[in-house]
Amino acid sequence: MTRNAVVTDWGRRASQYLAKIASISEPGAGVTRLPFTNEHRRALAEITGWMQTANLEVHLDAAGTLIGRSKAPKSAPTLLMGSHQDSVRHGGAFDGIMGVALPILALERLEQEGQRLPFAVEVLAFADEEGVRFPTALIGPRALAGSLDPAVLEMCDAEGTSLRQAMLDFGLAPDKIGTLRRDPATVIGYLETHIEQGPVLESAGQALGVVTAICGIERHQVRFRGVTGHAGTLPMEGRRDALVGAAGLVTEVNRLAHANKTLRATVGTLTALPGVVNAVPADVRLSVELRAPDDLVREQAGQALHTIAKTIANSHGLDLNIARSYHQPAQPCDEALTIHLQAALQATGSQGLRLASGATHDASALADLCPVAMMFVRCRDGVSHAPQEYASADDLGSAIDALCKFLTALANKSPS
Amino acid sequence: MTRNAVVTDWGRRASQYLAKIASISEPGAGVTRLPFTNEHRRALAEITGWMQTANLEVHLDAAGTLIGRSKAPKSAPTLLMGSHQDSVRHGGAFDGIMGVALPILALERLEQEGQRLPFAVEVLAFADEEGVRFPTALIGPRALAGSLDPAVLEMCDAEGTSLRQAMLDFGLAPDKIGTLRRDPATVIGYLETHIEQGPVLESAGQALGVVTAICGIERHQVRFRGVTGHAGTLPMEGRRDALVGAAGLVTEVNRLAHANKTLRATVGTLTALPGVVNAVPADVRLSVELRAPDDLVREQAGQALHTIAKTIANSHGLDLNIARSYHQPAQPCDEALTIHLQAALQATGSQGLRLASGATHDASALADLCPVAMMFVRCRDGVSHAPQEYASADDLGSAIDALCKFLTALANKSPS
Repeated sequence: MTRNAVVTDWGRRASQYLAKIASISEPGAGVTRLPFTNEHRRALAEITGWMQTANLEVHLDAAGTLIGRSKAPKSAPTLLMGSHQDSVRHGGAFDGIMGVALPILALERLEQEGQRLPFAVEVLAFADEEGVRFPTALIGPRALAGSLDPAVLEMCDAEGTSLRQAMLDFGLAPDKIGTLRRDPATVIGYLETHIEQGPVLESAGQALGVVTAICGIERHQVRFRGVTGHAGTLPMEGRRDALVGAAGLVTEVNRLAHANKTLRATVGTLTALPGVVNAVPADVRLSVELRAPDDLVREQAGQALHTIAKTIANSHGLDLNIARSYHQPAQPCDEALTIHLQAALQATGSQGLRLASGATHDASALADLCPVAMMFVRCRDGVSHAPQEYASADDLGSAIDALCKFLTALANKSPS
Repeated sequence: MTRNAVVTDWGRRASQYLAKIASISEPGAGVTRLPFTNEHRRALAEITGWMQTANLEVHLDAAGTLIGRSKAPKSAPTLLMGSHQDSVRHGGAFDGIMGVALPILALERLEQEGQRLPFAVEVLAFADEEGVRFPTALIGPRALAGSLDPAVLEMCDAEGTSLRQAMLDFGLAPDKIGTLRRDPATVIGYLETHIEQGPVLESAGQALGVVTAICGIERHQVRFRGVTGHAGTLPMEGRRDALVGAAGLVTEVNRLAHANKTLRATVGTLTALPGVVNAVPADVRLSVELRAPDDLVREQAGQALHTIAKTIANSHGLDLNIARSYHQPAQPCDEALTIHLQAALQATGSQGLRLASGATHDASALADLCPVAMMFVRCRDGVSHAPQEYASADDLGSAIDALCKFLTALANKSPS
């Protein structure tokens, strides 16, 4: 086979894997595969088959992470790869699971090509990254990093089943999670492959990209309160219209993000009361979410948001409540590992385009354990978390190719 | 008694009347008195007492309007006065019913003072102006004007009772409404007294004002549709955020009204979907209501609204649906009658301030029959349709004084 035919062939294998496991889903449109369910169990059986085909040794850890390890001495330094098996409700066939399938296929390809690696590789299929079933997530990577708060085991799903009980029912050992913590000295790093979930690679005509950082996030709850009144009898002069104030804030939040290349700012929710056609709105609540790969940029934007909201409230005679309700710092990827990944992409003919990840991933939790890097794969129209989510077999093949080059190039370096 | 003591005394009578009838209400905060109910029946008994005290002859017409007529030949030209007995849910003690009580007391005062009028006066207590129980209103004045569409009798309330059945159960004769039509040649005009429901008189330090016109109304339903996406992964560039577009429209609608002294413009409702904190809004619906005393001003604003919405949709890549869902032309008050009313106000020491009515009133339906004029009474903080609605006894007394001067001055003119 020519070089391109090899890439095409492995891409086709990946597409077949993903199509098959996409059928392991609750009924309904797209893929719905929640953690510690029958669908999860059936998915693990499928992934176990992939891992065994790649000659990996398979076991399920106490936190529900399925681990396929290449044959290597127990003391060998270990490179971690992988992503999550679960999906959102009515999600797609790529988010998460693609990052499990591709490294398994890359290892199978290297095995077939007779390439030996001087380090162990473990491919990890985490149970729960999306946080759909329980109001928590990232149990598997946090267990490895030793950062899991055991209190989350008491959180319950919508049926009232605790996370602990769900894990016990699944045959896991939630009380042994503490033993899973890895010694950072034994871990080379973690490389996660994920669909981009955005349109940047597609716009740039690139199949693959290198992630510079996982953006930090902050969310603010804003409430403007004014005075209602009859839309016919209340003169414009002196109105204290909470929606007019809120509209000004939506405009300014958008302007703020457009003025800063790396900031994303979104008003996702807005409700106006009393909400009748002929009454001035007196009570408007809205949410503002800010994301940036640089915490300083994000925090300055958060401060600007508060200043803007106060100015608007003053000029419209409104009472203002504004509070930051959530924040999560940015997680920069490891620069050395990222440069190494970029070189691997470039060896496949890719530009090695660098971009930030606006969404959170398992890598953000594993960064507490080891250097992390991420590769993004182009997805059609930037769509994710929807049945239409799609990455082409050719792009999957290119990603496997880049992973192989990453591994063989790493083999030629002295691993840290 | 001195002049002021007389005014004070009659104002106190009016306050007592209004406090008493306010107790005829469904349970709950404020006044809830809906048409063709037990509360309506008890209110009619109370108003009948007021009318009889003023030496008026009382009857209930086929449409449920209680009519108190001064003793005069059947063929005498007739001046109509009055307003409505019903309230909104949890409304106040003044809206509507005050315009019934004050002319009755004015006629009682003239009677006591021995003033004879060369025309008949009828005080009308209409059943339903608010349109809370049935999806229609103004049955009484439309019956007099001959403009009632009998089809509305088939409209049902929330319990499924038709308006016809409710009227029959109340002892009325809905099928005889056609006979209520008055001959315009016999009617001098209609004068309605109402609380302002706005803050203009209070700001100007005036107890009373003269209405120039009842504003025309138009309502538009606007829908912007864009594309949703993950608030973290979707770059700002190229977003099609329906809420950013809608916010721009809210701002422009407000600007439009501030740029025109007589226009009132309100976005009363706004909903944004999918409505989650980390997703770009893709579907926003909002309502725009425009009111002006001049139809041309209002219609030009409506056209400007459509132009602005299209410009916003184009610049944000949004699909736009916009439609005018309702309109009602402005109803100018009769200039001769209004000048006469203004002179009466000025004779009481009032400035006779002229202002438009942003809300609709029974007078708008009676304008199809005869010349109409309206007097507004100052209300506290501009609040109406709420339990806090309030007009002072002094202001009620001033209004009665102005009504007496209006009637006696009209008696000295040759009625049309």
